[in-house]
Amino acid sequence: MLKETEFIKNYIKKGTKQTKHSLNFEDDVAVVNNFAYSTDTISEDIHFFSDDDPKTIAKKLIRVNISDLISKGVKPKFCLLNFSSGKSINQRWLDSFFRSFHQDLKNYNLNLIGGDTISTKNKTVLSLTIFGPVKSKRIIKRSSAKLSDLIYVSGTIGDAFIGMSIKKKQIKFDKRAKEKLILKYLVPQPQTNLINLIRNKANASTDISDGLLNDLNNICTMSKLGAEIQFSSIPKSNEVIKFLNSYKRYEKSILIGGDDYQILFTGPKGLDKHKNVTKIGRMTRKKGIKIIDKNFNTLLGGFTHSLY
Amino acid sequence: MLKETEFIKNYIKKGTKQTKHSLNFEDDVAVVNNFAYSTDTISEDIHFFSDDDPKTIAKKLIRVNISDLISKGVKPKFCLLNFSSGKSINQRWLDSFFRSFHQDLKNYNLNLIGGDTISTKNKTVLSLTIFGPVKSKRIIKRSSAKLSDLIYVSGTIGDAFIGMSIKKKQIKFDKRAKEKLILKYLVPQPQTNLINLIRNKANASTDISDGLLNDLNNICTMSKLGAEIQFSSIPKSNEVIKFLNSYKRYEKSILIGGDDYQILFTGPKGLDKHKNVTKIGRMTRKKGIKIIDKNFNTLLGGFTHSLY
Repeated sequence: MLKETEFIKNYIKKGTKQTKHSLNFEDDVAVVNNFAYSTDTISEDIHFFSDDDPKTIAKKLIRVNISDLISKGVKPKFCLLNFSSGKSINQRWLDSFFRSFHQDLKNYNLNLIGGDTISTKNKTVLSLTIFGPVKSKRIIKRSSAKLSDLIYVSGTIGDAFIGMSIKKKQIKFDKRAKEKLILKYLVPQPQTNLINLIRNKANASTDISDGLLNDLNNICTMSKLGAEIQFSSIPKSNEVIKFLNSYKRYEKSILIGGDDYQILFTGPKGLDKHKNVTKIGRMTRKKGIKIIDKNFNTLLGGFTHSLY
Repeated sequence: MLKETEFIKNYIKKGTKQTKHSLNFEDDVAVVNNFAYSTDTISEDIHFFSDDDPKTIAKKLIRVNISDLISKGVKPKFCLLNFSSGKSINQRWLDSFFRSFHQDLKNYNLNLIGGDTISTKNKTVLSLTIFGPVKSKRIIKRSSAKLSDLIYVSGTIGDAFIGMSIKKKQIKFDKRAKEKLILKYLVPQPQTNLINLIRNKANASTDISDGLLNDLNNICTMSKLGAEIQFSSIPKSNEVIKFLNSYKRYEKSILIGGDDYQILFTGPKGLDKHKNVTKIGRMTRKKGIKIIDKNFNTLLGGFTHSLY
């Protein structure tokens, strides 16, 4: 199994003409003619399962895609759908999937303009390609964090990972809290209300799809800086707090678990005055990521993604 | 197995906001802000096989996508790749696929700007989303054929279908001719040299991906006209002529076999003065498609796609 970074290095960057449009294949989006583009694929048995409710699969497809654009301060506007229908798909599944799909397009004011559909005897594979107008002079990159920047996240962290763990490992937990966390994993809640804040105030940004530390590490290495974050300041939902009280060994895993689709961004002080924004640390000259607890003891230092 | 037209009617059009951008999901491309967009998916076991040369698969992926844009008189410029790597993919496959992929991007002056890659234990599924600037005031549609229009095709017809039949059914045939036809099936040759002609002179156009009759039928129904084509005037390669001499029962199948990725277009007389363009018939007031041979006897009349 090839890691995505290796894949991009060996097969995408190598051999192709490097242009400003691709942002060197190192960011969440590409930019052509003042439009930002992104695409994500989700596949049966990896990102969803044949017994999942098709309604949640449709929403997941739309939202993991939206997430990339809004994390760059861009409002998603248009999309194309590649629908490779597998053998477990029947008419009821299609009816349910597409009712939810069109509902969510409407939710996000997204315009489906085209696509392609094929029918296979294999697993279902769904891709969405999504784009929207860049309203500012520049796109907010991963590489443009400043030394003086503070680090912020939107929403709460860890819900999706805990939800996924509860679902996959059938962990026992309070029924209502369990359902809430599993739903956060199945249906991400990208923070479209922060698009303007990101566009106008952030210096660097990304969405949190591969885990807080991994995505922060992308900002650090591309900005040639380090980061220090305070574990206790990471925003956690009541359900996650409750879960961590019972399952303390999951505490650090909320840092590396993915699927939250929140926004991680850096910028000047004061951005946490906005609703759903929490300050979690600061950029540093010293490379690597240092995580400190309330008493500033190092919990985990010098993070690099080779930890995975 | 759901037919694409049914799928579009039931699941794409229904429920979504109809906008001018999608061209009502009835054409080869969508248009946003003077860019035309198209996307196509090819899948292992349907459009290619695990023992096919990865070099030809890469080219097929690019060319079936290019074909949609050039048939509308648009030069493809940018693309995004969704690479869902299946279990039969190894490093040698990837090396070979991507060497050929980047070579063909260069051939067509196409700029890869982004994408997504996932690794599965299933079959390989490849999507490309492709776009380019619309240089004219309007896009050439399927629906805008005029009653006085003549009907033209680019290149030769039937090579890909005969090539596929030879390959799949292991039909015996002259070795060199056989290889040439199979290659036409594996690696389509879209006629980029005709982009300007289409843009400046055609009234209606489409690419021939689902067979000459099927794609002509799309132009007819959407233009609310019929067509009369002369079988003997359909351009055939020497290899196809030779093949049909031995296997006469395949004669009509070149009209309904797909995968040629040539351009089918209508316009005023004289467009067949261009290299690689052949006049094959004319639009008619009478609905349906009438096919006449040299002696103007009806070979096949009143074609509608319910024939499939």
